[in-house]
Amino acid sequence: MTDFFKGIPAIKFEGAQSDNEFAFRHYNPDEVVLGKPMKDHLRFAAAYWHSFAWPGGDPFGGQTFQRPWFGDTMADAKLKADVAFEMFQILGVPYYCFHDADMRPEGANFAESARNLDEMTEYLAEKQAESGVKLLWGTANLFSHRRFMSGAATNPDPDVFAYSAATIKTCMDATIRLGGENYVLWGGREGYETLLNTDMGRERAQAGAMLQMVVDYKHKTGFKGAILIEPKPQEPTKHQYDYDVATVYGFLKDFGLEGEVQVNVEQGHAILAGHSFEHELALARELGIFGSIDMNRNDYQSGWDTDQFPNNVPEMALAYYEVLRAGGFKTGGTNFDAKLRRQSLDPEDLILAHVGGMDACAAGLKAAAAMLEDGKLEAARNERYSGWDTSDLLGLDLSTIETRVRELDIQPEPRSGKQERLENLVNKYL
Amino acid sequence: MTDFFKGIPAIKFEGAQSDNEFAFRHYNPDEVVLGKPMKDHLRFAAAYWHSFAWPGGDPFGGQTFQRPWFGDTMADAKLKADVAFEMFQILGVPYYCFHDADMRPEGANFAESARNLDEMTEYLAEKQAESGVKLLWGTANLFSHRRFMSGAATNPDPDVFAYSAATIKTCMDATIRLGGENYVLWGGREGYETLLNTDMGRERAQAGAMLQMVVDYKHKTGFKGAILIEPKPQEPTKHQYDYDVATVYGFLKDFGLEGEVQVNVEQGHAILAGHSFEHELALARELGIFGSIDMNRNDYQSGWDTDQFPNNVPEMALAYYEVLRAGGFKTGGTNFDAKLRRQSLDPEDLILAHVGGMDACAAGLKAAAAMLEDGKLEAARNERYSGWDTSDLLGLDLSTIETRVRELDIQPEPRSGKQERLENLVNKYL
Amino acid sequence: MTDFFKGIPAIKFEGAQSDNEFAFRHYNPDEVVLGKPMKDHLRFAAAYWHSFAWPGGDPFGGQTFQRPWFGDTMADAKLKADVAFEMFQILGVPYYCFHDADMRPEGANFAESARNLDEMTEYLAEKQAESGVKLLWGTANLFSHRRFMSGAATNPDPDVFAYSAATIKTCMDATIRLGGENYVLWGGREGYETLLNTDMGRERAQAGAMLQMVVDYKHKTGFKGAILIEPKPQEPTKHQYDYDVATVYGFLKDFGLEGEVQVNVEQGHAILAGHSFEHELALARELGIFGSIDMNRNDYQSGWDTDQFPNNVPEMALAYYEVLRAGGFKTGGTNFDAKLRRQSLDPEDLILAHVGGMDACAAGLKAAAAMLEDGKLEAARNERYSGWDTSDLLGLDLSTIETRVRELDIQPEPRSGKQERLENLVNKYL
Amino acid sequence: MTDFFKGIPAIKFEGAQSDNEFAFRHYNPDEVVLGKPMKDHLRFAAAYWHSFAWPGGDPFGGQTFQRPWFGDTMADAKLKADVAFEMFQILGVPYYCFHDADMRPEGANFAESARNLDEMTEYLAEKQAESGVKLLWGTANLFSHRRFMSGAATNPDPDVFAYSAATIKTCMDATIRLGGENYVLWGGREGYETLLNTDMGRERAQAGAMLQMVVDYKHKTGFKGAILIEPKPQEPTKHQYDYDVATVYGFLKDFGLEGEVQVNVEQGHAILAGHSFEHELALARELGIFGSIDMNRNDYQSGWDTDQFPNNVPEMALAYYEVLRAGGFKTGGTNFDAKLRRQSLDPEDLILAHVGGMDACAAGLKAAAAMLEDGKLEAARNERYSGWDTSDLLGLDLSTIETRVRELDIQPEPRSGKQERLENLVNKYL
Repeated sequence: MTDFFKGIPAIKFEGAQSDNEFAFRHYNPDEVVLGKPMKDHLRFAAAYWHSFAWPGGDPFGGQTFQRPWFGDTMADAKLKADVAFEMFQILGVPYYCFHDADMRPEGANFAESARNLDEMTEYLAEKQAESGVKLLWGTANLFSHRRFMSGAATNPDPDVFAYSAATIKTCMDATIRLGGENYVLWGGREGYETLLNTDMGRERAQAGAMLQMVVDYKHKTGFKGAILIEPKPQEPTKHQYDYDVATVYGFLKDFGLEGEVQVNVEQGHAILAGHSFEHELALARELGIFGSIDMNRNDYQSGWDTDQFPNNVPEMALAYYEVLRAGGFKTGGTNFDAKLRRQSLDPEDLILAHVGGMDACAAGLKAAAAMLEDGKLEAARNERYSGWDTSDLLGLDLSTIETRVRELDIQPEPRSGKQERLENLVNKYL
Repeated sequence: MTDFFKGIPAIKFEGAQSDNEFAFRHYNPDEVVLGKPMKDHLRFAAAYWHSFAWPGGDPFGGQTFQRPWFGDTMADAKLKADVAFEMFQILGVPYYCFHDADMRPEGANFAESARNLDEMTEYLAEKQAESGVKLLWGTANLFSHRRFMSGAATNPDPDVFAYSAATIKTCMDATIRLGGENYVLWGGREGYETLLNTDMGRERAQAGAMLQMVVDYKHKTGFKGAILIEPKPQEPTKHQYDYDVATVYGFLKDFGLEGEVQVNVEQGHAILAGHSFEHELALARELGIFGSIDMNRNDYQSGWDTDQFPNNVPEMALAYYEVLRAGGFKTGGTNFDAKLRRQSLDPEDLILAHVGGMDACAAGLKAAAAMLEDGKLEAARNERYSGWDTSDLLGLDLSTIETRVRELDIQPEPRSGKQERLENLVNKYL
Repeated sequence: MTDFFKGIPAIKFEGAQSDNEFAFRHYNPDEVVLGKPMKDHLRFAAAYWHSFAWPGGDPFGGQTFQRPWFGDTMADAKLKADVAFEMFQILGVPYYCFHDADMRPEGANFAESARNLDEMTEYLAEKQAESGVKLLWGTANLFSHRRFMSGAATNPDPDVFAYSAATIKTCMDATIRLGGENYVLWGGREGYETLLNTDMGRERAQAGAMLQMVVDYKHKTGFKGAILIEPKPQEPTKHQYDYDVATVYGFLKDFGLEGEVQVNVEQGHAILAGHSFEHELALARELGIFGSIDMNRNDYQSGWDTDQFPNNVPEMALAYYEVLRAGGFKTGGTNFDAKLRRQSLDPEDLILAHVGGMDACAAGLKAAAAMLEDGKLEAARNERYSGWDTSDLLGLDLSTIETRVRELDIQPEPRSGKQERLENLVNKYL
Repeated sequence: MTDFFKGIPAIKFEGAQSDNEFAFRHYNPDEVVLGKPMKDHLRFAAAYWHSFAWPGGDPFGGQTFQRPWFGDTMADAKLKADVAFEMFQILGVPYYCFHDADMRPEGANFAESARNLDEMTEYLAEKQAESGVKLLWGTANLFSHRRFMSGAATNPDPDVFAYSAATIKTCMDATIRLGGENYVLWGGREGYETLLNTDMGRERAQAGAMLQMVVDYKHKTGFKGAILIEPKPQEPTKHQYDYDVATVYGFLKDFGLEGEVQVNVEQGHAILAGHSFEHELALARELGIFGSIDMNRNDYQSGWDTDQFPNNVPEMALAYYEVLRAGGFKTGGTNFDAKLRRQSLDPEDLILAHVGGMDACAAGLKAAAAMLEDGKLEAARNERYSGWDTSDLLGLDLSTIETRVRELDIQPEPRSGKQERLENLVNKYL
């Protein structure tokens, strides 16, 4: 044991009335909700990068965190892993997620980076075995290093495409080795800064080819996990090609990959794209590409990705309602892609931020489950569309319909949409 | 002749130095640009609705305009048409566009509305014949009347779907009778106010079925024009299903209609969706669904559709550059979907707003043509990607590429994206 | 009794477990919170305009509501008043608010409008006396009629200033006659569409002069209520002069009126100005100009004023926390400046929307009171700044401080801001 | 001479037709505009920080630039200064601006940082003397180092206030030593991340006290330059106290400093605050606090500070029109607070970005001057308000005005605001 979290106990459920900051008030892992334990609904994962690799910088200031593992040696990387797994166990999260760049030092060239990754993968495999913590997903960081400044798969330079493809292979290998349940692609630099220097047609084709290679490699290796794309509209780029769920869907259809790839939906990215989180989740479900979620909160008044820990329970309830309507997570889960505020310097801040986030999710899940179980919301929805249950209209043509409208003198009478009473109904479960 | 525009002369080209407000300084219809007359590049159209049917209201105030044709008789509708064609001829725009609701009075039921439409269609046909002005596109207004408050094709009530389908048929008939070159669908109410009462799966299926019916009717009638969808993200709804070009593309792919339907891209809608106008145009081109444009300007500081006349020439240049790169308009054109400010009460405001807009477009087109002719921008773009011209990478797989990266020790070196110098280059043509 | 709300009972408190849609689950008027009844904390008011005068239109569609009192006769106006007071009594709201234009028909000229206002004022006085419902505030609608299209006090035409001043006088008289506890000014057209035709210096001076006249008239008449300005950044104008609380404060200071005028803060307007509601409330408190609130909810994804009924209890809790920290309302209250969605056609929608809103506010208030009573949040805040309690720094000068920093070799060590744990703490009370 | 800009010539004016990338097409320093040389209108300054100290990072990636002077020795700092002055001279900018942190290495404590600053100040003084380049303004960076993470003047820890005050003193001293014409304060961390841990009242009082100390020190030292506050709404904080021009004005009035302090208005910050640049400039002029400008361009689709070089000439024209209406710059100037895109790696990118920006400003200035000289815009504005020239209304009271409205039966008739024709007029000068 390191002494980073010295004095902080493993977090236990104590119920809503508990005054103990270091206890769950809502997350009770084994409590059965809609027929299965809460932990199996929520499938919580902690993110390696924000919690252990981010130094606390922003565009106007540098490092605020001072962690004993900050450095670029293998020893630093192992200390970081030790502390990370201590946090996972304190919190009782069943999963974690990583990028290669979070957990291994950058090497002097590709081969050295890959060797570092291999060594750390073995180290993490041991940590997993000891702790029982599993890997929800792995991914490659193809956006931080300056070589990726103009894109990874979509780079004007084929050498960067090659470097990226090779890196993805090593990260998929590590994910497979660690029993990961998904492999994620977020295209942080797969977009443009200016149309003036961009060949959008070439770049889309490159991105499609890369995604096909990933899918082929999944099949070649027999990897059973899901391949997930994480939509985001912009930042760091002016425009990112996987803007939102609808855009990703069109991209997948274009390359014939809609049966092979799903989406990892993030609340903050949804907000930046002008959508509510529940919208993106509902759309992914309807399009058949719902996979997993990145759970955070974006400040509604900030035009950049704030990646805060979630705390608004009514919003969580609406999100998990859509997850439940999608049948819940299969390979996916709830990954806290959330970071501490850069002023939250203390080890206990890291623990308490997750405790609060897990509780907000759990409270949201319970409310969502109650809504679904009660059935009033779905009954109202079905009743609203019930006229369609017996309608033959969708099989007709314009001329036939016009004749019918004239003959029957159809004069539709609007009916109340009842939004406010449905909102009241939702509030009843909260 | 009515006396609405009394004293206002036909607008002629007088050149950049002219001090005459009632003259074009840049739009010279027969001036040849890139091998064809400017008028055939721009294919200007005026919009019936904003210019002649809108009373000047906003959410906080009612009618400011007082037009002699405001009323709901056929005589009013004919006077409106007379004035509209006078404006088209004063401006020398070769085209106009309409919704049914702009040009005929609403009847007591479907049949009466359809009769009114028929009668006005014949009246407009005569006006077209007399004036030589043509119809760029027709469309149905399926959003203003209260029957459409919960959607048209996507309404929970099949009767509204039927009413909408029948209305579309009559509007397609009118468009065909008037020799329209396109038929447009804008789904102003095809979206939702709240997910709580919305069955997104049903609504998408309904929208897809309606679009298929429209395409079938096009083929059945032998209509040669294009079917165009006009994307918009929201307003009046919280979310509109044809959010942006990428979303429409995914929708078309889903229903197998990507070869049948194109997009009519509006500047203001692009801005509201978080995109630049040129982005939406470039994307439509790359996806093969570029059709036509609605030209206006959205205030960058206002979060709703301001539909102002365009006046920023550098922005127009970037937009027409993408139009030219798409091969220019085929059936499409430049429709001024722009409205006067509600304080611009005078008949001459209506003329001058169009004069300024046409001049801004013409100046933008000339700059775009010069950029394209000069070729430096395209040369720089091609050079940036030239490494790909001889690359075999897209045909390989991840393992092969990884081996190559290791063997060749590929270490990509970033190269300048040169954004600022390309921006300087663009400014040279303005 | 009209039969508009036929069959809808007076709303009673039944507690959180009630399944009755027509009951309060949180609002228990006489329940004592922090030493006084909940109703005296919240001081709920219903808004005449949204609930009874708005026809359900939006920029893309017209009237959806069909109310028996829509029309422009005095009989219509009285029927509207009858129904309004029935709603106030069903809900048990102690207050209402009005604009002149909501409650009297527009006359053919100023004198006739004023006569109509007088007659309706007497009618409302009787309704108040019968029902015990009181007037929280009155105001003049100086934005809907076309005469105000270019501003009221800030109009380029002095005649409009005069008409506005005269109208304000009649509305202040009506407010006084009805025992109103405040008089509100919202400058919907006091801004500009374009700087090109605007003399901002003149317009500010005109606005300052008008406000001084209002204050003078208050003193002349002995009106004891507060004069309130309601900030809004834009819409309908591109820019509104009373953009937000900070802007109004600067304006008041400029004209020496900061001791005479307070603010009526609206959630939706705060959001449109880029602020959280609680920010605007906290700032108003710190500046000493907090007066009253307009309670609604703005859709975070919509860039215009959506004026929805509030339903997010955690947000309400933060808002009322700032109200309580300001010492609670004096003359102010909680006015539901919220409107039904235009698809919510039924009389019961109007009742249920208010029930849900009142419950959300009540739940928020109780949470806020618990936070304040518990004291942990304030203790943490005070502790964070405790170094200042004994500091003499603010009385020194730069040179003295520099010397001290050098001599003591001051090297400040950052301390955690603890944001996440404070957010967790807040959630405990919800 | 270093060899950083090797091969790049001094930039000369060659006129609009020049094909030379390394020449001005519009900026002709000695060309007389409105009676004085262009260079004296524009008073261009280059920013030390963006051009020489920024490594090219963003929130998702690190350093892209590799400059020979990156490091933290005094030798690095001097090499940076050498290259900076080479750039100033190549461009022919008469001014530059700096933060302490840009030009001196951070020391181990305050005293060492101050010594480094002193030494570099002397070095820069020599460079100024050799080159003739002058200092437009200096400022202290009180936001990058972790000690400032919770604010500088507004920090909960008095020690940080003290450290900040001492730092400001040294920076004012350096500014005075270098003949700076202004001293600027931008409060990047003077705001909050969450209201929950913030005492807004204390923080405002601290900020006011600090500003008073700065003003006192100005008077004590006899510094003749202006003290400037640079408004920004947010980023890095959630809320910044000097949100926009109107907010700063209220703050100055509150502390009685409106005659002592002016504003340095930045285009990007205006956009982020929901305003146009010209709005902020016009408002500053009307409030009597216009000082200087930071010239850059914010991407309209990005919700963070993009600080791009300006390139839209019509926007520049509107900005300089307001500057000219304010009487032009006194101590202020046009500081390029703009940074290269992080992909623009080459030394020549740095030169060309400035060349394009200077040309855009010069073209804007010339258009603005022509507008003002021609006088049509001002004539139209004055005509619109001419009714006020002879009005006695502002001296009356509500009752008197009401009587007049009744007696004269005033019925104001709206007149066209003519926005579109004024926009056309502006375009004529471009």
